[in-house]
Order: sequence, then structure tokens, then C-alpha cells
Amino acid sequence: MASSTSLNMCSNGAIGACNVSKSQNAFMSFCPDLVGKKLVNCMPICSSADFTPLRNSFPAKPLNWESNGGVSKKFGVPCHVVDVKSTNSFKVGQKFELSDVLEAQQFDRDTLSAIFEVAREMEKVEKNSPGSQILKGYLMATLFYEPSTRTRLSFESAMKRLGGEVLTTENAREFSSAAKGETLEDSIRTVEGYSDIIVMRHFESGAAKRAAATAEIPIINAGDGPGQHPTQALLDVYTIDREVGKLDGINVALVGDLANGRTVRSLAYLLAKYDDVKIYFVSPDVVRMKDDIKEYLTSKNIKWEESADLVEVASKCDVVYQTRIQRERFGERTDLYEEARGKYIVNQNV
Amino acid sequence: MASSTSLNMCSNGAIGACNVSKSQNAFMSFCPDLVGKKLVNCMPICSSADFTPLRNSFPAKPLNWESNGGVSKKFGVPCHVVDVKSTNSFKVGQKFELSDVLEAQQFDRDTLSAIFEVAREMEKVEKNSPGSQILKGYLMATLFYEPSTRTRLSFESAMKRLGGEVLTTENAREFSSAAKGETLEDSIRTVEGYSDIIVMRHFESGAAKRAAATAEIPIINAGDGPGQHPTQALLDVYTIDREVGKLDGINVALVGDLANGRTVRSLAYLLAKYDDVKIYFVSPDVVRMKDDIKEYLTSKNIKWEESADLVEVASKCDVVYQTRIQRERFGERTDLYEEARGKYIVNQNV
Amino acid sequence: MASSTSLNMCSNGAIGACNVSKSQNAFMSFCPDLVGKKLVNCMPICSSADFTPLRNSFPAKPLNWESNGGVSKKFGVPCHVVDVKSTNSFKVGQKFELSDVLEAQQFDRDTLSAIFEVAREMEKVEKNSPGSQILKGYLMATLFYEPSTRTRLSFESAMKRLGGEVLTTENAREFSSAAKGETLEDSIRTVEGYSDIIVMRHFESGAAKRAAATAEIPIINAGDGPGQHPTQALLDVYTIDREVGKLDGINVALVGDLANGRTVRSLAYLLAKYDDVKIYFVSPDVVRMKDDIKEYLTSKNIKWEESADLVEVASKCDVVYQTRIQRERFGERTDLYEEARGKYIVNQNV
Repeated sequence: MASSTSLNMCSNGAIGACNVSKSQNAFMSFCPDLVGKKLVNCMPICSSADFTPLRNSFPAKPLNWESNGGVSKKFGVPCHVVDVKSTNSFKVGQKFELSDVLEAQQFDRDTLSAIFEVAREMEKVEKNSPGSQILKGYLMATLFYEPSTRTRLSFESAMKRLGGEVLTTENAREFSSAAKGETLEDSIRTVEGYSDIIVMRHFESGAAKRAAATAEIPIINAGDGPGQHPTQALLDVYTIDREVGKLDGINVALVGDLANGRTVRSLAYLLAKYDDVKIYFVSPDVVRMKDDIKEYLTSKNIKWEESADLVEVASKCDVVYQTRIQRERFGERTDLYEEARGKYIVNQNV
Repeated sequence: MASSTSLNMCSNGAIGACNVSKSQNAFMSFCPDLVGKKLVNCMPICSSADFTPLRNSFPAKPLNWESNGGVSKKFGVPCHVVDVKSTNSFKVGQKFELSDVLEAQQFDRDTLSAIFEVAREMEKVEKNSPGSQILKGYLMATLFYEPSTRTRLSFESAMKRLGGEVLTTENAREFSSAAKGETLEDSIRTVEGYSDIIVMRHFESGAAKRAAATAEIPIINAGDGPGQHPTQALLDVYTIDREVGKLDGINVALVGDLANGRTVRSLAYLLAKYDDVKIYFVSPDVVRMKDDIKEYLTSKNIKWEESADLVEVASKCDVVYQTRIQRERFGERTDLYEEARGKYIVNQNV
Repeated sequence: MASSTSLNMCSNGAIGACNVSKSQNAFMSFCPDLVGKKLVNCMPICSSADFTPLRNSFPAKPLNWESNGGVSKKFGVPCHVVDVKSTNSFKVGQKFELSDVLEAQQFDRDTLSAIFEVAREMEKVEKNSPGSQILKGYLMATLFYEPSTRTRLSFESAMKRLGGEVLTTENAREFSSAAKGETLEDSIRTVEGYSDIIVMRHFESGAAKRAAATAEIPIINAGDGPGQHPTQALLDVYTIDREVGKLDGINVALVGDLANGRTVRSLAYLLAKYDDVKIYFVSPDVVRMKDDIKEYLTSKNIKWEESADLVEVASKCDVVYQTRIQRERFGERTDLYEEARGKYIVNQNV
């Protein structure tokens, strides 16, 4: 199993030290929360008018949610971009509208920039303002049909750091009415009556989309089987930008189990939004990247190649993204698992 | 398995769309929380004096808990009925005293009216006042010996919507000292040291009564094996009143697994409090309503009859209450389960 | 299995009525939270200056966290002893610095006195001030690799009673990335990014020390396999002091499974801090106290002896501490379990 290095981006799918992006995890994970079907009200975070006191008065006084008074969470106002100069194409005060967070390809480059801008501001909130009340009065349900302590707690930490509240289930598959034959759609109809936003982990690819088709509140896909894990990919791209200093023109090696890793799939989709990116796929034969991603990259003019030589690839890359070989995806084929594991090890002292 | 229709009341025991009562679930579930052994202090909610600002100032300012200052939750003041005209027999300011919520037959008609009145006010709180602080400083423990995501989250959502806090266990049977041989009574003695009220789901009929006999804080029965589910029944009656416009003189069909469904049992007890109600039991032979309920209804002069013809019954009813045939209650008798299931289907497009 | 008596101190390891120490459990459990690696900021609780309004203004106004403004939880200020006269050797305003809470022997007598002083103040906070905000803005993670409803909820109750927030996992062993092969160290590195303090229950002796070696935030050992349970022992000693009125010169019988009980091990270490204490070990042969504790006591000049006669021992003791014979520690040796159980029963009506 690979150790991580300073080149190695943290992934929920990777076993290794998460020294780079760990502390931001909560805030990037949170980001999608600024997103609403009829738009969650995020004015105090996003609008330029409201934003000034946010930065000036910290940490003397936590943000007040009072500016939106009695506005229900179901009829929020559109987000606006914060007034920072580095925002690429958004103008200050310009709206961006987002709905559910279901898959990485839903984001365009400008939306990504706007989200990262908010995330940068959120990092300051965490550092300077214990007890922020930005999301006071909002209730998030974490509906996890597959246990995942790291992902679940990252969302819950973000929510609570900002004054919001959480309803949680660690193992909805075993503990809920799902075990009694209830459909996902009926479960969603019930839980949306209790909460303002649902963060869902599921064991089936496409489950988040089915939930979103039913729900009238926003759904965030926190991993759906072998499908995608878009918020993890948002965090990964944010971290790359922060550590490397750019996203255009970077070379990225995606290493490990590329067939079963939903985080690498989502990350490839997001990297395809940038210019002159080159992606190297480095994996054992039995878990090579699937054709759908390769075809998508080609269609977007993103260069990619497969290689078996991690050392040679690493020397050409700005980022090596290392994922775990997931034993649980091999079922009874322990022979294939043994063949795949331990093949590419990134040593912390290289 | 039956789909639900607009006639079909939502039940925790029913698999079907919960479009009617879903959004109230949290608030009706909450209702029993206004209930205390030495009476939980609910003055800001219930007394006519305190209630005026509640309605006038919304949503400008959340309710303050300050009026009860340092009064401990263990020595609260009695509830009063809110000053609304539709309350049947309670006078404004009149006390109603409640203890634990253990079984549906504990409620009399006047108490039901008073509870529904508070519930109607709570609906307004949820719509108009995100971040209500009515229950700030109060701590509810949800002690679930049998997992139930829907019921558990409904109580927790209500508590958090009103500013209270929650201690939770999803699966106390497997995860707690119960597995090490601790008695229910000892568990209750420990948990009551941590919290102000306990909401308990248990796998044994009568468990809530045993807990209440031990505890000095209020116990709410959120389902005890094949016994009762009184808060679900409170919600069901509230929903019927709201949708049909009355409770006296209604005809209600109870359909499905009537032998094992604790929600229909509790609902039958509550309906017996009203005048000129007629109940139709429609079920497969193997899961017919048990004699104790039939005898109770007869003793209360409530008309009831059994029928196998759902279509004919439905044409005479104001409400069709559909429950799920619960596979888990049939054990090894899958033949009986197969015989019972799919027999009565309420089609949404009828 | 033994019932408890008024002589019988409550232990997480004991099956019995916890009437003596139950209500303090939350607050003693909380105590270690005043503890920080770079010191958690507990000025409003501990410093004599800030403490005055705490006691005078209760319950009119909850404590404000404002005095420490934007100070991050990672750079708090040292604790000070509260200004009460009974504190043995600390002067008012004197600092005591604590790091993680890992094992009972880490505490010296003066630190114990200071902690108990704060605990006494916390008892008043709970009784007089529902909705205290002393820990507002702080986030505690309860990371339980072995389920324990009582211990977990006691920490969570304390945190929430003081306005703090909680991230929780009931069964990290089964539900988390531990099941996927992640090391404890990597898990800790992730969770410390989400929270300000970690309370950990683990199935392996020494796990808390390993976590503390990795973490930059405080770790509290809430039980590590057959190792220790220091916060339970803190509570036990606090309770003995309160009930017996002294700690020097007391005679204590430790009864039951002394080989596997981590609470008796931690308690023995703490009792060794006091003068003229005598400890009687009363247990079935197969679960006698291990030599490491006996040698430690001898090295500290604490008198101890083993006895098989509980009645005779009890007549000489100020405290009888009764633990459960833990079936789960005997594995397949049910014969040994049957031999050990039911041998020493403390009857409530003796």
C-alpha cells in the first residue's frame, strides 16, 4: 500500500497521510452546500455587499444571519461572487446558480472559480472565528447507505463549524427502512421533510441522480458506488491549485486502482475543464482506467496516456495522485488483488 | 406492496408516498416533548401571555427562553393552552398535565385538542422562523434498540428545529451495554443522568412502560415491538383532522397487516375518542386485527366491521389508512407472507 | 451478577445501579476537556478573574465566550485554578498544564485537586444554567472503535450541556476506513482536521497513546482494550471524595474481575496518589489483579492484600468497588466464566 508524499493529493479513496488537503476538507466539502435547487440562501457568504463586514470584523463578531430574516431555506436568493480580484471570469455581484451536486462534469470552469473563491473565504472563517453562525438555523441530513467516517464527519464538521445542525445516519442500508424494502425515492421523500439539504453516500452508481430527481431540496453526492465522488474531486482540484499555483498546463499522474476508484473518475472530469492539462494513467493491468473517461478526455482535447513506469511519469508531473487498491472491489479474485497491490509505492522520503 | 393515494395517511409502518403528513411529522412527533413528568417547562410555547409575542414578532426575532431563567428542566411549570378559539373544551390558560407518552389510550379528547393546537402553532414556527430557540438548553436522548431512521430523524429534526440538542444511538441493542447483559432499567437510569427526555424505540412490547416506571424524566414511546406507536397515531389523527376537516363522524378503513402493525393499533385507540366514528378493517385473513382492539372499540361504542372488499369499503370512507405487510413478522412462514402480500393495492391514479 | 449498594461506586465496567455518581458522570467525563496539548482555552472556566461572574450572575446570563475573541482553539491559554479555599496546594491563579488524558498515573495529587475543583463548579453550571455556552464554538469528535453507549453519551452530554458540538461515530471499527485497512494514525490525522479534541475508545491496549503521538490536538482515552479507563477513574475518585469526605486514609475493596477490568486498574493508580490508603483485592482466582498493579502499589508504599472473603473485607472498608465479571473476556472458556461469576454479590439490602 502506498504511502503519500508531498506530491500526493489526499483522496478519500487513498490510504495515506493527508497532510496537504486535510484541513481544507471540511470547507471544500462544505462548498456544495452553498448550492440550492431554488438556491440555498448564501447571501452573507457570497454577495459583495454583505461580504465586507465578514472580512473586516473578524474575529470580533460572528456573522449574523439576520439579513435574510424570515426567508425560508426553500426560497433563498441567488449566490453572488465575492469581491476578490483573482476570480477569473465572474464579475463581483454576478450570479451563479447551482442545483444538486451529482457529478463532476456538471461544473464549468467559471463555476469552479467561484466555488474556490468562497472556499478560500471559508478557510479564513474557520481560522479566525470559532463559533461562526453563518448557517445557523439550517439542518443537513447525512444519509449514508455505505459507512464512511471520513467523508461523513467532514461534511458534519463543516456544517457545525458554521453554526448549522446535522441529522445523521451511519449505516442507512442496514439500519433504515431500506432493509424493510422501502425504495430510495420514498426514503428521500421522508428525509427531505426533516432537513434543508441531504448529503448522500450510496452503494449504487446513479443513486444520487435518482434521489435528486425526487427531492425538492438539494442533494449532494458524497460517493455513489463505483460512480463518482464530485465533492472530493472539488477538494482535490482546489488543493492542486493552492499547492501548484495553477491548473492550466499541469501534468497529473493518476496512480493505482483506476477502474474502481470513483475519486479519480471525478477528478479526471474536473481536470478536463482546464487548458493544456496532461493526464498520465499509471495502474496495474487489471484495474486500468475505463474507456468512458478516456473518450471524454479525448473529446475535450485533453491529452492522456497510459504508462506502467511510475518513476518516469513522476519526473514529468506536477502532481501524483495516488489511490488505494481496493480489496473489497475484487470479490473472490484475491489472485487479481494480490497481483495489483503493492505495485506502485510512493515513498515519503523519495 | 401498496402505493399511497391522497386518501392514504402516512404511517411509519407504511411503504408509500408520504405526501400528506410528511412535513408535519417533525412537529407532531415533537408534540409529546411538551410533556413532562414533573412537567417540562413549555411556558413560552403554551401560556397565553407568552404566546402573543411568539406570533406577532415572527420572524423578526426568535423566541427567548429567558422567561424561565434558571428554572431547571426537572421543575418546570405546567403547560397552558394557547389562546386560539378553535380549542374545543380547554379555556385559555387552563392547565393540562401530561406525563410520559406510552400508549394511545392515555389521551383524552381534550388533551388531544390541546396538543393539536400546539402542533398547529409549531407548524408556523417551522415555516417562519429558521433557527427557533424555543428549546435551547434542552437535551433529548434517542435510545433506539431497533433501528428506525425515519422515526429517529423525525424526533431529532423537531428538537433541532426548535434549538434543542440531541444525544443519539442508532442501534442500542447491538452497540450498548444491553449486549453485555445490562437491564433496560439500568440503562435508563444511566441515560436519564445525561438528558432531559428520552425517546425510546424497543423490540419488546411494554418496554416503554418499564422505562417510565424507572425514569424520573419523561419517556416517549417511539414504538415498542408489536405494542404501540402513540406519537405516530397522534400525527395520523392530526393529519386526518387537517385533511378531512373533522374527526367526529368519519369513516376510516384500516388496511393491510392489522395483526402486527403497532401504528394501526394506536390509531384505533385514538379514533375511539371521537363520536360516531366507524372503522373498517380490511386485511388478509392471516393478519386480521386482534380481539383486544375490537373489544376496546365495542366497549367505547365505536362501530367497526371487517371486510375483504377494499373497493367497496373505500367508497364509504373518508380515509383509507394503508399499512405494509411486514415480512419480518412472518418468520419462516414465507407461505403466509406470500399469501398476504399484494392483496390490497391502493393505486395512486384510481 | 452483583447489585450495587450505597457503598458501591459506579463504574462503566460495572453492571449495577449507578445512583451515586451517575449525575456527575457527564461533568467528570468532561473534565479532561479542560486539557490541551498547547492547552485548550479554558479561561472563562478556570481563571479567577473570569470566574467571578460565572458564579455571581448565574443563572441570569450564560457565560460568554467573548473574552477569548478570535483565539484559535489550537493556541489557547493556560488553565488557572478557581478561587476556592479547599484547593489543597494550588494557589488561586496558579497554572496547571495538562496534555492528553491517557492513563491514570499521569496525574499528580495537585492536578487531581484542581480538576475536582473545576468539576464541582461544573456541577453548579449544570444545575443552574440550562443552555450554558462555555464551550460554544468547540467541536469534539467521539471516535469509538468499540461501541459503548454509556461512555460515549456521557462525553457528548457534557459537551452539549456546555454549548459545544459533537461529531460522533458509534462503531468506527466496523463502519470506518479502519475496515478498509487504514491505520489508526492515518484516521487520527484525518479526524483531527475536523475537530478540536478527540475522545477515543479502542479495542487495543495502548491505542490512545499511539493516537496521541500522532495528533496535534488533545486525545482523551475513553478506554483502550484491557488497558486503562482514566476518566472513569477520575470520576470514581471524585465520587469517593464527595461521599466519604476524604481520600487520605481510606480503605477500599476492589471486587470482581480484576484481571480484565480496565476501570479498576486506573482506579488503583489514582488511589496510589493518596496517603495511608489500603486496597483489598477480592476476586475469583481466575481473574485476580495482575502483578504490574501490585508492584506499582508496593513501589508507592500503598498497602494492599488479596482476600476471598468479601463480607469480612467489607466490614473494614469505606468503599466497596464492584465490577462485573465480563463474559466477553473469557472467549471459549465458559467453564472459567461460570466459575467466576456470581461469586461475590453485594446485596442492596445488606
